Amino acid sequence: MPVREAIRVAVVGATGYTGAELLRYLARHPHVRLTAATSEQSAGKAIAEVYPSLRGKVDLRLFAFDAAQVADHAEVAFVGLPHGAAAAAVVALLERGLRVVDLSADFRFRDADEYARWYQPHPAPQLLAEAVYGLTEYHREGVAGARLVAVPGCYPTGALLGVLPLLEDRLVDPASIVIDAKSGVTGAGRTVAAEYLFAEVDDNFRAYKIGTHRHTPEIEQEIRCHAGGTHPVTFVPHLLPIRRGILTTLHLRPGDGVDAAAIGNSYRRRYEGERFIVLSGDRPPEIRDVVGTNDCAIGWTVDRRSGRAVVVTVIDNLGKGAAGQAIQNFNVMMGLPEASGIDQLALVP
Amino acid sequence: MPVREAIRVAVVGATGYTGAELLRYLARHPHVRLTAATSEQSAGKAIAEVYPSLRGKVDLRLFAFDAAQVADHAEVAFVGLPHGAAAAAVVALLERGLRVVDLSADFRFRDADEYARWYQPHPAPQLLAEAVYGLTEYHREGVAGARLVAVPGCYPTGALLGVLPLLEDRLVDPASIVIDAKSGVTGAGRTVAAEYLFAEVDDNFRAYKIGTHRHTPEIEQEIRCHAGGTHPVTFVPHLLPIRRGILTTLHLRPGDGVDAAAIGNSYRRRYEGERFIVLSGDRPPEIRDVVGTNDCAIGWTVDRRSGRAVVVTVIDNLGKGAAGQAIQNFNVMMGLPEASGIDQLALVP
Amino acid sequence: MPVREAIRVAVVGATGYTGAELLRYLARHPHVRLTAATSEQSAGKAIAEVYPSLRGKVDLRLFAFDAAQVADHAEVAFVGLPHGAAAAAVVALLERGLRVVDLSADFRFRDADEYARWYQPHPAPQLLAEAVYGLTEYHREGVAGARLVAVPGCYPTGALLGVLPLLEDRLVDPASIVIDAKSGVTGAGRTVAAEYLFAEVDDNFRAYKIGTHRHTPEIEQEIRCHAGGTHPVTFVPHLLPIRRGILTTLHLRPGDGVDAAAIGNSYRRRYEGERFIVLSGDRPPEIRDVVGTNDCAIGWTVDRRSGRAVVVTVIDNLGKGAAGQAIQNFNVMMGLPEASGIDQLALVP
Amino acid sequence: MPVREAIRVAVVGATGYTGAELLRYLARHPHVRLTAATSEQSAGKAIAEVYPSLRGKVDLRLFAFDAAQVADHAEVAFVGLPHGAAAAAVVALLERGLRVVDLSADFRFRDADEYARWYQPHPAPQLLAEAVYGLTEYHREGVAGARLVAVPGCYPTGALLGVLPLLEDRLVDPASIVIDAKSGVTGAGRTVAAEYLFAEVDDNFRAYKIGTHRHTPEIEQEIRCHAGGTHPVTFVPHLLPIRRGILTTLHLRPGDGVDAAAIGNSYRRRYEGERFIVLSGDRPPEIRDVVGTNDCAIGWTVDRRSGRAVVVTVIDNLGKGAAGQAIQNFNVMMGLPEASGIDQLALVP
Repeated sequence: MPVREAIRVAVVGATGYTGAELLRYLARHPHVRLTAATSEQSAGKAIAEVYPSLRGKVDLRLFAFDAAQVADHAEVAFVGLPHGAAAAAVVALLERGLRVVDLSADFRFRDADEYARWYQPHPAPQLLAEAVYGLTEYHREGVAGARLVAVPGCYPTGALLGVLPLLEDRLVDPASIVIDAKSGVTGAGRTVAAEYLFAEVDDNFRAYKIGTHRHTPEIEQEIRCHAGGTHPVTFVPHLLPIRRGILTTLHLRPGDGVDAAAIGNSYRRRYEGERFIVLSGDRPPEIRDVVGTNDCAIGWTVDRRSGRAVVVTVIDNLGKGAAGQAIQNFNVMMGLPEASGIDQLALVP
Repeated sequence: MPVREAIRVAVVGATGYTGAELLRYLARHPHVRLTAATSEQSAGKAIAEVYPSLRGKVDLRLFAFDAAQVADHAEVAFVGLPHGAAAAAVVALLERGLRVVDLSADFRFRDADEYARWYQPHPAPQLLAEAVYGLTEYHREGVAGARLVAVPGCYPTGALLGVLPLLEDRLVDPASIVIDAKSGVTGAGRTVAAEYLFAEVDDNFRAYKIGTHRHTPEIEQEIRCHAGGTHPVTFVPHLLPIRRGILTTLHLRPGDGVDAAAIGNSYRRRYEGERFIVLSGDRPPEIRDVVGTNDCAIGWTVDRRSGRAVVVTVIDNLGKGAAGQAIQNFNVMMGLPEASGIDQLALVP
Repeated sequence: MPVREAIRVAVVGATGYTGAELLRYLARHPHVRLTAATSEQSAGKAIAEVYPSLRGKVDLRLFAFDAAQVADHAEVAFVGLPHGAAAAAVVALLERGLRVVDLSADFRFRDADEYARWYQPHPAPQLLAEAVYGLTEYHREGVAGARLVAVPGCYPTGALLGVLPLLEDRLVDPASIVIDAKSGVTGAGRTVAAEYLFAEVDDNFRAYKIGTHRHTPEIEQEIRCHAGGTHPVTFVPHLLPIRRGILTTLHLRPGDGVDAAAIGNSYRRRYEGERFIVLSGDRPPEIRDVVGTNDCAIGWTVDRRSGRAVVVTVIDNLGKGAAGQAIQNFNVMMGLPEASGIDQLALVP
Repeated sequence: MPVREAIRVAVVGATGYTGAELLRYLARHPHVRLTAATSEQSAGKAIAEVYPSLRGKVDLRLFAFDAAQVADHAEVAFVGLPHGAAAAAVVALLERGLRVVDLSADFRFRDADEYARWYQPHPAPQLLAEAVYGLTEYHREGVAGARLVAVPGCYPTGALLGVLPLLEDRLVDPASIVIDAKSGVTGAGRTVAAEYLFAEVDDNFRAYKIGTHRHTPEIEQEIRCHAGGTHPVTFVPHLLPIRRGILTTLHLRPGDGVDAAAIGNSYRRRYEGERFIVLSGDRPPEIRDVVGTNDCAIGWTVDRRSGRAVVVTVIDNLGKGAAGQAIQNFNVMMGLPEASGIDQLALVP
């Protein structure tokens, strides 16, 4: 490996769960020097005061976001702010010449109107054409030269990696897509609300936002982009009593004569050589297979009796669903080996 | 309340989780005297040695199953044995004049061949015509006079209570039924196997037996019975990292013009006066709403964008999915008030 | 059982976890009619909107606390408010002629100065002499005639029931008391704070407030009262990743010649006939033995090698540690059978 | 970093939880080539069939232990077998010229009689004098030249790292040591027994083996070795409903005038420069601070009222308590940088 100077990197919004996971990965990234971390609530504190597990490992003092100050320290910024706030920060950072990996929803949509329907009027629509949707396996070339990458939402990542090959290969009916997804609690970030208290979540399970979750249009956009046509999906998210991980069960209507072997071939062809896609065949993958990693594992079955295909994918929502995929995109963007800093093994058990 | 002599009741197979839940309910049932409890593995022990929470509350010594000995003590037996073993015990108990509530799969099927396809050759096919499928809300009249009631499986209970009214009222396409079910670990009983160890289940989640679970034909039998026609369902069970509870998400294709109001009306009409059905409208019910109870809560939505109906039901797999429903049937069978001994409130939080 | 008119009862502060547990018990109490429930935050809502598990079971509309309105509906009030607020409500309710069971810390201390040192200046010191400390097994006679009962704290209940008999019988050195206690999360009530989020508590464990927890002086007061002398204890609370339950490990120095048999005799003598004390001998009790009940289970060992006695007690912090004991006191206060409404069995598994 | 040839390493007993954690670390160790892994139960399977998270990451086929076969592949073996079986394997491996890091109890004792009292007659007493007790911070020099290192037990690691500095500096009374320890379930390995089922452990907590746990004499041996004198400790282990981690609460009687500052100075002096010891002062460390790492974090307080010192330590029982410390010793033994392959950050949240 040729000696290469470390890239100076900042994390904007470092104390949320996604921010913490970015720090965990970046602090051990072989080509990165972590130089700045911002937080509005904890400005002035050492990061180890907020995350004691970083004591002696990450020695940074948090400051309130200031684009100029970030630009003094870093060439690339990861932005882990809520939507809306993210766009403002991104604009300011790009103006100062940084390259940006944004983890919010702000730059995931090609169409400002679609964003407006589900979120709010878009604060920086002029950037939408430039931003690259960072589902790396599908937009790697765009990411390579990008100034701004939008990291996909966690649910869309888990759903799209499972469904897109089958749609591209016309193996399943695009009008038949049912996405029954189950997520760990950190998918909601570090939101301090009664519904996320331990005593409300432990030994409990529930569906929420049936048909109304904001990740729905993001999924449909990419289906349109990769398979053509407009196909509303049924998307039902559920809240699991676990910290990390999303398991997505896709219920699909296969075309005539499409069997499990055909589906397997489609995945193998599409994902050959992909470092972070694990094909597990007819063994449905489990969430713990991927916790702490950037992997997406995929299993599939065709139910002979009902004729439906059932695809199961798992990701770590903070890994491939957020911080891991952000760094994967960063690596591609900067010409680094794609697995740099994110080739860890799952923490099992 | 007129004074009534207590009914002497035995629990056959008392140390599994279903058995323990039967004891919990029956020990406080106002019209029951718990007189005998059997266990092969723990014969000779006091029940409180196996379940210390029963110390000072249930004072019974376990003995290995012996039909004559059970008959000496009891008029009614609850049988909580594995399939196969259950049938043998049931036959012996009926011969001695007891009435039986069986919690195994052995007497749930009308057709011995169907049982044979999914389990094994049926050990007592002569009883199938007599046995009543104890989904109380649908077979109450049959239960009232029965000598033998077969308590439905936990997954079928959660699925059928949600789907049957809509099929009966022809509101949804019977060919469209997708059952995405998630169960707590006690659904597998007290099986001592590596896959059910705490370190394998905690903070994990997985699908299993996709399209091959033995509860599938039971669901299809009742759909056939109540809605007519043969309709294979897609049934995908998952294992939740919780002890108790099943949440079933039903994905259904409604007929033209069928909206959430029509679905609500169907449920209200069908379940009017039902003590153990809780309709929660467009708020999807949560598992904890029913833990420790015999309730089934049902919520529903029609997703305007995709046109699909999404129904969510929750039960306690040891309550309405096993011991609770067993006692509900027992109450009906014996002419007791239907809620006797099972009108507890959920343990929240 | 002679027919007896139901006692009309109100729960003041009904939406916290203790309030919810009071409702759960009182709604099925055979001698109680639940007539009023207050909440500041959820005033105007039906209780089932806050706790869907109560839908169809408890039909009350919440109102903001108003002593006159409570007095219109009830003879007895359970007060589940934060300290300080509780005292104000108690004063107003007593003035209107109600009898009160208070679950806060406000009336647990005999000495207003001691309360002031650990909490704040006492808002109603004139009532301290009258209030009875409701550790029922130790103050039953006082409770019987009381107008105001102060329900002990959860940690003190678990510690005192284990240590007091041994101190009374002079079996252990009162200067040697180490209380290493572990509590489920509901011990902190329904506090919406980052530290109680699922993602912070799950698969985690920590000590907190070592030597500074406010339950310390309460424990010492009762030791002084029942064993004489002033003996500071070492009290180290920990937070368990469970919803309910406290396990208290007591490390004690026994007197010369005191063995496990002597300790067992002391417990048996002291707790003979006590309905809610379960002696489990040398098998240390587990938290789940008592979840959902009003029981306290006690186990004990003398470690021959080190000479120390180790006593383990378990309670449900919402049961014997709060709502259960509150109702036990209520039953004694009103001349009802002491176990009325609280003789449930633990939810196992 | 000078180029260095990778050391060929085998894991004997690779499918237990400790074995899996060894694989996780060793597969990413920069100076190691993982060449062999044995398993009696899963011989013939690919390791990824047992641990799907290793699919595509660790490509080894398991074989039943055979010393010659291991010797063909490796220079160093990590032995993760049950005690007894471990000694036999260690003898055979040493005979074939391998260096061995043993994770069982077999070579932790200097005195074969002590081992015999708590375990069984020692199968290879001739090796006890040579084996080095691998509490690295205390036996680094011995480890450096060792042929055989015995990795300490998980409980002893957590207790000794907290108590030894205070004993060496004579700050606390060695007759006063109370060790109240709480461990995650993987401390029991992958034992398939009813007591470790999810439904038995979840939302539960219990003490066990009070005063009789086999780690007791190991703790006492090291206290004798480093502080002199024979001092029986009170050791009370508890089982936490978490997968990984041990929190040890030490209750100690400090000498006259010993305050928290003196204790802090002792730790700082003793552990200066130690890479895997984290001092957290008066903030008690939490288990999650160290999950997935080789760290031990230590916090301390002196309770002014009772005069007792309370020390809290946390480790990951599979990390510093087993596989992590094993690799730390391996690194020292082989002259590698001590943190090679084990400098990961904790998985938070």
